[in-house]
Amino acid sequence: MLLPASAVADAYARIACHINATPLLSSHTLDHQLGHRIVFKAEGFQKVGAFKARGALNTLLSLKEEGRLPASVCAYSSGNHAQAVAWAAKLLGVKATIFIPKNASAIKIQATRAYGADVVVTENRAAAEEGVKALVKQGVYLIPPYDHDMVIAGQGTAAFEALQGGAEPDAIFAPCGGGGLISGTWLAAQALRPEAQVFACEPLNANDAARSLRSGKIEAYTGTPDTLADGARTPSVSERTFAYLKQISGIYEISEAEMILWTQVLSHLLKVAVEPTSAMAMAGANAWLATQDGPRKVLIVLSGANISPETYAKVWAEDRLAAFF
Amino acid sequence: MLLPASAVADAYARIACHINATPLLSSHTLDHQLGHRIVFKAEGFQKVGAFKARGALNTLLSLKEEGRLPASVCAYSSGNHAQAVAWAAKLLGVKATIFIPKNASAIKIQATRAYGADVVVTENRAAAEEGVKALVKQGVYLIPPYDHDMVIAGQGTAAFEALQGGAEPDAIFAPCGGGGLISGTWLAAQALRPEAQVFACEPLNANDAARSLRSGKIEAYTGTPDTLADGARTPSVSERTFAYLKQISGIYEISEAEMILWTQVLSHLLKVAVEPTSAMAMAGANAWLATQDGPRKVLIVLSGANISPETYAKVWAEDRLAAFF
Repeated sequence: MLLPASAVADAYARIACHINATPLLSSHTLDHQLGHRIVFKAEGFQKVGAFKARGALNTLLSLKEEGRLPASVCAYSSGNHAQAVAWAAKLLGVKATIFIPKNASAIKIQATRAYGADVVVTENRAAAEEGVKALVKQGVYLIPPYDHDMVIAGQGTAAFEALQGGAEPDAIFAPCGGGGLISGTWLAAQALRPEAQVFACEPLNANDAARSLRSGKIEAYTGTPDTLADGARTPSVSERTFAYLKQISGIYEISEAEMILWTQVLSHLLKVAVEPTSAMAMAGANAWLATQDGPRKVLIVLSGANISPETYAKVWAEDRLAAFF
Repeated sequence: MLLPASAVADAYARIACHINATPLLSSHTLDHQLGHRIVFKAEGFQKVGAFKARGALNTLLSLKEEGRLPASVCAYSSGNHAQAVAWAAKLLGVKATIFIPKNASAIKIQATRAYGADVVVTENRAAAEEGVKALVKQGVYLIPPYDHDMVIAGQGTAAFEALQGGAEPDAIFAPCGGGGLISGTWLAAQALRPEAQVFACEPLNANDAARSLRSGKIEAYTGTPDTLADGARTPSVSERTFAYLKQISGIYEISEAEMILWTQVLSHLLKVAVEPTSAMAMAGANAWLATQDGPRKVLIVLSGANISPETYAKVWAEDRLAAFF
């Protein structure tokens, strides 16, 4: 069921000339304060502002290689996956229809339209899923946000690129929603740095993956979990991504307070926009580093930089920096 | 009284190997929406998070070249100049004493200390000025924030680097506080792009430079102007920088609402931390572009990315993005 590690290298060869080679960032101040070396893969500078561009494009280019590029694709997303599919489809001249529930931010709907996709705004998630189903029956190709081998291999190219670029981490941390990014990240480590431990980080308030790993079967949410990590509100992982989650070294459950602290600290030190979803990975790394008996080198996948005004306001409602430094 | 344009090239030759060559950023979405080409010089990625590192370092290296590197320097600042002097002094092994009024943010005080400077926290601005005076009497060298030829030449290297890097603007916009950055920017344009117009942007609520240009003599504030552009709260320009201001093509006075709008828009599109002081320059460019009869190319100096939690909270208190796109 698991892909071979070479799938990520194949994905990278396929997509590299179309995506941004995102920078590796670091902070002397942070390294000095923690006594470790932390390197950040800044996927906020990726096309569409998030790693999601990698998986969507790898899927379409894989289909093209196999001579079965669809004329039309669809997706359901309230987040970065919507823009990623719209962007990748436009690049390949494929029609895209994206279903977005109406509670998604206006700015994400606008951005998805700006990439040339047909956007269907639905009452709720169920209506969006119905819409996707109807299109799939008509032969439209569905690109799912994480439950797809080529999506997983594509997402893994973020860590792959960082490892190729000279990061030599003892451990790699990435956020976990549906599990696509962490699955691909684990594969990338198997390809280029098998001695590195790989850790997932998810919101304590949306800890379905951690609960699933504890119970041994997939646990799911109903409703919308109360977390600022909007990239990790996925109700559950899939059988496919659960198989990868069983391979990794562990999972950290991050409180909202930790998430806010690290969003503030990383925004302040790195001077880039940091999604709370991304800051979770640093919170997990910080917890792990506190258990280590010597200096370690860590790679953090900063998954994206698409932050709604509402999220900005919540993150900065209180000053957490003064107490940190 | 004005420096020759070559002073900026000399400054760049002096400092280039010690500073960051900051990236030029742009946004397809913004260019498409405005119908112009906008290039941003991202000085938030400069040492100490702001262009101020350039001027402070150029001053010390110039003194060193002349064989009179002081053993000890001092400065008064509540902002980025404090960290810049501390950083440059540390680089050259010079002792630095920085006077910071106690209403400055805790994080700036901490950062200045972290660069190894002695920080003296004073009751107010007057006490800080007294402290500086006393040290100068003892032979300590004062690096002023803008009223100094080598500071001006150093600040100009931000635009110089951008122009060398291939920006070919019709107009250049930079924020104006005491006038050091805009003076150096004008010099840089004379050196590499004399056909470009150069515009200053200052807060409408702290428009001493605009008032000075209108009256023909230097107008000053007393007290602290009510503006989010904390980099432009300087009470007045100096005779030295006023001479440069008389050379530029114009000055835009930016309202707090425009400043907030452009801070939100640029944070959203560029994925970097943007100070309201920097966003002013884009607000001015937008006003100028609206008067043009065809597509123009503009260079914006994003002066820095050191944003206090309080400023973040004020910037994001209301969503201005939804109405913009």
